[in-house]
Amino acid sequence: MKASKPNITIVKIGGNVIDDPVALSKVLTAFSKTDGPKILVHGGGKEASKIAQSLGLEPQMIDGRRITDQHMLDVVVMTYAGLINKRIVAQLNARQSIAIGFSGADGNTIVSEKRKNPDIDFGFVGDIIAVNKEPLTKILEQNIVPVFCAITHDGNGQLLNTNADTIASELSSTLSEIYTVKLIYCFEKQGVLINSNDDDSVIPAITRSKYRDLLEIGAIHSGMIPKLDNCFLALSKGVDRVIIGNPAVLENPNTQCTTISL
Amino acid sequence: MKASKPNITIVKIGGNVIDDPVALSKVLTAFSKTDGPKILVHGGGKEASKIAQSLGLEPQMIDGRRITDQHMLDVVVMTYAGLINKRIVAQLNARQSIAIGFSGADGNTIVSEKRKNPDIDFGFVGDIIAVNKEPLTKILEQNIVPVFCAITHDGNGQLLNTNADTIASELSSTLSEIYTVKLIYCFEKQGVLINSNDDDSVIPAITRSKYRDLLEIGAIHSGMIPKLDNCFLALSKGVDRVIIGNPAVLENPNTQCTTISL
Repeated sequence: MKASKPNITIVKIGGNVIDDPVALSKVLTAFSKTDGPKILVHGGGKEASKIAQSLGLEPQMIDGRRITDQHMLDVVVMTYAGLINKRIVAQLNARQSIAIGFSGADGNTIVSEKRKNPDIDFGFVGDIIAVNKEPLTKILEQNIVPVFCAITHDGNGQLLNTNADTIASELSSTLSEIYTVKLIYCFEKQGVLINSNDDDSVIPAITRSKYRDLLEIGAIHSGMIPKLDNCFLALSKGVDRVIIGNPAVLENPNTQCTTISL
Repeated sequence: MKASKPNITIVKIGGNVIDDPVALSKVLTAFSKTDGPKILVHGGGKEASKIAQSLGLEPQMIDGRRITDQHMLDVVVMTYAGLINKRIVAQLNARQSIAIGFSGADGNTIVSEKRKNPDIDFGFVGDIIAVNKEPLTKILEQNIVPVFCAITHDGNGQLLNTNADTIASELSSTLSEIYTVKLIYCFEKQGVLINSNDDDSVIPAITRSKYRDLLEIGAIHSGMIPKLDNCFLALSKGVDRVIIGNPAVLENPNTQCTTISL
């Protein structure tokens, strides 16, 4: 009986939404008004790079790929789990949502493994291997809002830098076993654009076959590919609805956005 | 019926215990083996000062008192709530204690107000006005270990830098309404010393009248005075036992330490 599952909304915010205090305040107000159980997942914005630069750390690159060495891990843990997470938590609590900040280490909620790659050692980057839903559901049952940053752990004391889109997708997939999950990826655009230079060129709906067509004509590229892969993975694992759009979709469901479906 | 209250152990770690990875690992192992519900409160060690220095921030002083400006608040939030808190949480979870990191903003657990002082504006320093025990007791009932850093909030979105000893004392006082609380202040010494240059000069027991005598002869000074004031405040508000000692007291209750009583 699918209908008997309670609803949950999982919102991932990233991009300029994190960097701009006014935009962040607006999205948190809209998010806090969302009915029912909910989870917020946030990326890091540009703050970690700025802090790394202030500390005199050079980005470590191998074959053009960014790697997370010990110093950079410390910076992302400080920035994501400290500065940004606590700012968001304090602001949500000021909006009458009782929020608790989480990394994947907190409550052992998200366990990952250091990325295995035969060619490149990415350093302290984690690929998720398990989401533990028990502590999360108990928190959610108390009307507490978990706020996840993009840090996980390996279960042996090592923190790992983990993609926030993937965290949102994996949380959604696992929680779809007991909830009807609506997953919303919020960023500064109104959705997936057919022309990245034209903010009005939002594609209203993307199915798997349409995604293949868009990839073929080269309309979808760079960061949007892993994001869409995360969307389809979540849907294939039982997530009910996936939307990509700007924060206005939280306030008004009729706002223009991109709906992803299988 | 006082006997019907369940036991809880609240441990505050600070000083060199935070700065030394080997000492920290040892204390976390001992703490994770402590029976029953427990809470860990940690100070910031010297890491925040080091990071502030690396970022080129000068300590802001007024009349010889350190103040917390916006930049320093960002650094302490990053360091305490991010770097140190998540390291401790990851290490506790590796020791089979399911831990969740908290600032006072998380779960709206500790509300403070910006310090009011007619002479000095201390900046973003918070004096605690309320501990909300409901979210905490619900977390504790699930055998989850809250790990508190020295950050609170004002309930209106503002994070505040707050003394970790005071956090431990206030958490203990409030939870003594429903628990029999044992509060242990752990640092690198074996207890309160009668001669700060002699590590073997531990005072085994301090009562209020003994404290007055020690203050009169000048045997207790600087940082130990607010620590002892926190101890007596906790006892006067219903905390069952207060101990000051080094982490060995967590493993062996017969370890030399200082017991505080009214």
